[in-house]
Amino acid sequence: MTADPSTFGEASAAVRPTDDRARTEAVAHHDRLTKPRGSLGRIEDVGVRLAAIAGQCPPPVPEPVAVAVFAGDHGVVARGVTPWPQEVTAQMVANFCAGGAAVNVLARHTGARVLVVDVGVATPIPTVSPDLLGRNVANGTRDLAEEPAMSADQVSAALDVGVEVASLAVDDGARLLVTGDMGIGNTTPSAALIAALTGSRPGEVTGRGTGADDDMLARKVAAVERALARVPTGTPALEVLGEVGGLEIAALAGFVVGAAARRVPVVIDGVIAVAATLVALSAVPDAAGYVIAGHRSSEPGAVVALEYMGLEPVLDLDLRLGEGSGALLAVPTVQAAAKIMREMATFDAAGVTDKGDPRQ
Amino acid sequence: MTADPSTFGEASAAVRPTDDRARTEAVAHHDRLTKPRGSLGRIEDVGVRLAAIAGQCPPPVPEPVAVAVFAGDHGVVARGVTPWPQEVTAQMVANFCAGGAAVNVLARHTGARVLVVDVGVATPIPTVSPDLLGRNVANGTRDLAEEPAMSADQVSAALDVGVEVASLAVDDGARLLVTGDMGIGNTTPSAALIAALTGSRPGEVTGRGTGADDDMLARKVAAVERALARVPTGTPALEVLGEVGGLEIAALAGFVVGAAARRVPVVIDGVIAVAATLVALSAVPDAAGYVIAGHRSSEPGAVVALEYMGLEPVLDLDLRLGEGSGALLAVPTVQAAAKIMREMATFDAAGVTDKGDPRQ
Repeated sequence: MTADPSTFGEASAAVRPTDDRARTEAVAHHDRLTKPRGSLGRIEDVGVRLAAIAGQCPPPVPEPVAVAVFAGDHGVVARGVTPWPQEVTAQMVANFCAGGAAVNVLARHTGARVLVVDVGVATPIPTVSPDLLGRNVANGTRDLAEEPAMSADQVSAALDVGVEVASLAVDDGARLLVTGDMGIGNTTPSAALIAALTGSRPGEVTGRGTGADDDMLARKVAAVERALARVPTGTPALEVLGEVGGLEIAALAGFVVGAAARRVPVVIDGVIAVAATLVALSAVPDAAGYVIAGHRSSEPGAVVALEYMGLEPVLDLDLRLGEGSGALLAVPTVQAAAKIMREMATFDAAGVTDKGDPRQ
Repeated sequence: MTADPSTFGEASAAVRPTDDRARTEAVAHHDRLTKPRGSLGRIEDVGVRLAAIAGQCPPPVPEPVAVAVFAGDHGVVARGVTPWPQEVTAQMVANFCAGGAAVNVLARHTGARVLVVDVGVATPIPTVSPDLLGRNVANGTRDLAEEPAMSADQVSAALDVGVEVASLAVDDGARLLVTGDMGIGNTTPSAALIAALTGSRPGEVTGRGTGADDDMLARKVAAVERALARVPTGTPALEVLGEVGGLEIAALAGFVVGAAARRVPVVIDGVIAVAATLVALSAVPDAAGYVIAGHRSSEPGAVVALEYMGLEPVLDLDLRLGEGSGALLAVPTVQAAAKIMREMATFDAAGVTDKGDPRQ
């Protein structure tokens, strides 16, 4: 790992491409293990990626694990794009700190540490916990349909929070980072980012999120369309982020780049994390090799953006919860990929006859 | 759990449908947890199934785990349907006993006990291990393209082995069973069983297994077509099994029914286990509620048979290894589904505002 970057700028400059030599070795190593060539399918792809990230074949098992849940609110909720009141963001932050949410259950299940980060919650958090990282940049964003969601300073501060939390987790020992998010209304800025950065039409990438009805969905699409009118094709990703993004989304983008800067793999969750990763990889293309897509969310924008980035997700379970839940569910599979490479016998060592054919 | 059945007949008679009351409670319980309704997608379906199996809501976490790897050989390999020599079955059994195969790595990863069972290996096993369960019914099957693969007595004995091993695992404490298999050539009898029991054409359900080239694939399809000529539509499943099946496939069918008889969930692996489960559920329809499909194998027959049985698999990772590898990879997700139900806070308890809408 390289020295500890503390800002998004430093982290971006520190990102190096993953290791081609280890990648090549990992492909060859899989072919010597006592199994038909390629028969572990996408598990082998994950193992190859872990080797390239670590610069070692076989790669170390990626543990301990830390999941960072970035929370922020969104001015666009005033337009009726979600059935949930804005206060639920703060209430769920308290739930995360108390250990009762899905992310907590799945973090205990996979042995992950949970870092809860207030990067932009708008309403008071009911129970203040010493575990909460208070990094509030603003009390939510402005309405992205009307005006830029964030100022350039807010974007910069939120990106830095993400880098800081990634470094903090790695300094604490984590060798696998997982993205989490909470923000009532945040599928709307995610759809806007995905539409802008993939060149898709708003109607194709805007979904029902956590329960929008037909009228709400129509209002979401209309909000995304209005926002995109301010974002001509070719606008740099960080400017797009400021116009139509969110504080927790900016922090997630920083977190992804921060992980890559430290050469630690990062498992991304659903549509919010996917949108943040689009921003991160547009700004810092070499970070791409460090990203593992945890699951294919049922949100249409997630499917479009994953394909655009060429990321094949580990799981496909019709999840649409967020919080990092889908990414945490993928963690045991990601770790298994490393163990397969480290622990399986080779044909020679086990005295098993290889059919010896070239890879088909 | 009911009393310990020791034969396939006793196990079949002991299987009871899963619990509708617990199923209904489990659906309602998910809706009280602090997440949008239905947002954990197929995780919720797995949780509901576990509750129905256990007759309890929330269900217990299904652990400890045991994976049984049934090994057998196949007369049809003489026709050139696979690139691997038959001796590899015995060599891999030795590899399982030594702990070097994929199933061993993934069993350690998920905390599963491995039971290796010789139910029909044809050649000498290179290293005899005290851990090997020697239940050899015959030294492989006869060529299913020419004559019945097994006698009725052999079928009966192999089914009983499966029931015995399921009971042995449950008596040893296992509360989640996992199917594994090893048998050079066994995708051919699996394809024949799937074609016969789903009414599909051999060409649709016969795949390349662990590496058949075009000529081998053509010989596989031809072998399946010849075998099916002896199996008119409507032939009882256990007779079809004797005509075109395999010893390890029969044991797997017994294992599935044995799990259901003990009211323990069973996670099934790829195309071999799927074919065995088709036989098991044709013979004992009430066992269906106890089966969880671990993954969607890349073999075409697996896809057809899973759809025929209405089983939606947990994982979809292009795996085609067998041994129980894909089913073991699904175990952490299955256990997570129970923990979600047991450990997540409800809206009331966490002080989180529910949007209160009916399920959409």
